[in-house]
Amino acid sequence: MNDNKIAVIGVGYVGLPLLEAFSANKGNEIKGYDISKDRINDIRHRFANSNTHLFLTSNIDDIASSNIYIVTVPTPVDKNNKPDSTCLSIVCKMLGNIVKKGDTIIFESTVYPTMTENYCIPIIEAGSKLQAGKDFLYGYSPERINIGDSEHTIRNSIKIVAGCDEQTTIKIADIYKSIPGLKVKMVASIKVAEAAKLMENTQRDILIAFANEYSEFCTQIGININDVIAAASTKWNFSQVYPGLVGGHCISVDPYYLLQKACEIGLSLPLVSTARMVNENKVSKVVDRFVEKLHNTDIPTENNKILIVGFSYKKNCADIRNTKVANLVKGFKNYGYIVDVYDPLVNKHAAEKMYGIHLVTKEELSHHQYRGILEAVHHDAFQNLHFEDSISKLFLKIEQLL
Amino acid sequence: MNDNKIAVIGVGYVGLPLLEAFSANKGNEIKGYDISKDRINDIRHRFANSNTHLFLTSNIDDIASSNIYIVTVPTPVDKNNKPDSTCLSIVCKMLGNIVKKGDTIIFESTVYPTMTENYCIPIIEAGSKLQAGKDFLYGYSPERINIGDSEHTIRNSIKIVAGCDEQTTIKIADIYKSIPGLKVKMVASIKVAEAAKLMENTQRDILIAFANEYSEFCTQIGININDVIAAASTKWNFSQVYPGLVGGHCISVDPYYLLQKACEIGLSLPLVSTARMVNENKVSKVVDRFVEKLHNTDIPTENNKILIVGFSYKKNCADIRNTKVANLVKGFKNYGYIVDVYDPLVNKHAAEKMYGIHLVTKEELSHHQYRGILEAVHHDAFQNLHFEDSISKLFLKIEQLL
Repeated sequence: MNDNKIAVIGVGYVGLPLLEAFSANKGNEIKGYDISKDRINDIRHRFANSNTHLFLTSNIDDIASSNIYIVTVPTPVDKNNKPDSTCLSIVCKMLGNIVKKGDTIIFESTVYPTMTENYCIPIIEAGSKLQAGKDFLYGYSPERINIGDSEHTIRNSIKIVAGCDEQTTIKIADIYKSIPGLKVKMVASIKVAEAAKLMENTQRDILIAFANEYSEFCTQIGININDVIAAASTKWNFSQVYPGLVGGHCISVDPYYLLQKACEIGLSLPLVSTARMVNENKVSKVVDRFVEKLHNTDIPTENNKILIVGFSYKKNCADIRNTKVANLVKGFKNYGYIVDVYDPLVNKHAAEKMYGIHLVTKEELSHHQYRGILEAVHHDAFQNLHFEDSISKLFLKIEQLL
Repeated sequence: MNDNKIAVIGVGYVGLPLLEAFSANKGNEIKGYDISKDRINDIRHRFANSNTHLFLTSNIDDIASSNIYIVTVPTPVDKNNKPDSTCLSIVCKMLGNIVKKGDTIIFESTVYPTMTENYCIPIIEAGSKLQAGKDFLYGYSPERINIGDSEHTIRNSIKIVAGCDEQTTIKIADIYKSIPGLKVKMVASIKVAEAAKLMENTQRDILIAFANEYSEFCTQIGININDVIAAASTKWNFSQVYPGLVGGHCISVDPYYLLQKACEIGLSLPLVSTARMVNENKVSKVVDRFVEKLHNTDIPTENNKILIVGFSYKKNCADIRNTKVANLVKGFKNYGYIVDVYDPLVNKHAAEKMYGIHLVTKEELSHHQYRGILEAVHHDAFQNLHFEDSISKLFLKIEQLL
């Protein structure tokens, strides 16, 4: 038994597994809060028949008696790729109302270095009239959730922690260590923890950008990039990274947080910017190549309907936030094509609401003839998906166009 | 016993360890050829008291009876960073004179994709009047020698091999497998093997460039990049790469081979170019920062003499080819400083000949007073190197300036 009365704020793809992980220690009193009632009901529904009993609420009063608050709300970018701190700001205002002397607030949401201390904490201080670091403690511990990855879960990954002072760092480390199996890495400062998260994901973005750029080169000289990567991967220090569209809410977003802070301090980061550009440009290259293939088929050109299979931002998940498949759809529409999208993993309403894209059912598919089919995301569920020649004569996987 | 009569052409940092590795199998008849008599004498001298008996020659007739030729000559860049294929061209002409029907020629020198088949082989064919792929066989197997690395030697690394056809690939694989312990990866084509080598080293260049760029960011926000890398390295897929000057004959050269070929086919590689720029620019940043530190000391400004410790392109080796320390020296001289360089591992004559830089002895050092000392390369031998205050009050390691 310990005194941890933990409230996880934001029960999304980061908060939910964290909630579950903390719940594995019966000594923790653990609550999950989300501003969205729908979200709470959705999770309740999902766990209705499971043995995991989670306390979930969208009523702020329910978590006012907690003494540890962990913030796991989304930090996306806006249409101009600038950090959108709306959720963070709402949560900090809310915390300003409920934080008490002796409480600890931990941020897990990805931010740029200095954002926890210079943006979040002042909002909480202003609302609570309490002094951060004295009346209440705070820290930063970047989330490392990898959606759809059952190997690298919270419990078998290493968690970076940093507090507002050394004592708090140790305290926060102990809080996370209450999760069975979890290992902790204490770092020198909150800024170091913030910078580590951005470095991880920006490095990943850069590695994918290089694979994307090199793939253009390989295609032009008539070799297959996958053969080259397989060969290079036999070297001890080569990072085996493949070409691909970079979507989602981490790798394609975090570099923009970094670029924002760099811009503020008058520093240019040419490599980071270029990598973003290379990855963003990949979408139109895929579109162009697919359209070229369409022109080379002997299908009557009156048929201007194409089908995209897979809509989520990566395989085997339902998440469509910042999916680059939406950009593919837009690209094909610009060419004058009518585009159907099929993804049985994705929620139809979400796709409609977020992108105005109507997902077709498998049943609907069979009634159509398509000029071409592009498999944009290779869900395991698509392993046995085959299309009759009667539906389309051209079927390509995105790997063939990267 | 086998029929391998192997001649290694070019007994440098790649050829020599290869020669030794092949010699470990007594079934191989193995000879080392180098155009430089000095080089041959130097190695003979070095092995005089060892148990390793190597056949070394600078007489081309001595290797005319071999049936396998492995080319390990340098492929540097010229002053404009364009591939300098002088050595390769000389060797190919030479091979044109001695290659016989049934022989096998393997290239290990780093080249850009298509260079083996479109540049090297035609020279040999023209000289020999033989038909490549029919009269004699050929292939490509990129070297992965990492100077000063005792962990990743030829014998415990994986060797990529590709022949002009499938049969030849298998034959070349068997030749290398005669080295005890060596593992082989056969790849689809010579171009794939060539492209794999460039991808490995260019990826490395890009990773270092990112570390260099991120380090500027960390410095400006007041945190230590090494703390950040240590934190990020606890993530499963993070490549632990540190900032540094990128010199030597591999990582700082190979991307230019790639860029050359890309240019030929009309393709721009913005990420690769940017990474080169970032790494090249690091030199002047180090110079500027050191000069700034010099201004902030209370040493009389009449003293305009500085000392650089370490001159080779990386630690614990004598190799000064393409060392960026030479660029540091130039940078400081441009600021009007007189620069002494100290590196007991480096051959004085080589430094004089290649860069016109006079290396001072330890004895000479003690007679001087320096405005500042910069340790540019941290040889293990420098572990116990300490400078009296009487020599200089300012001593900085390059890590503090990256």
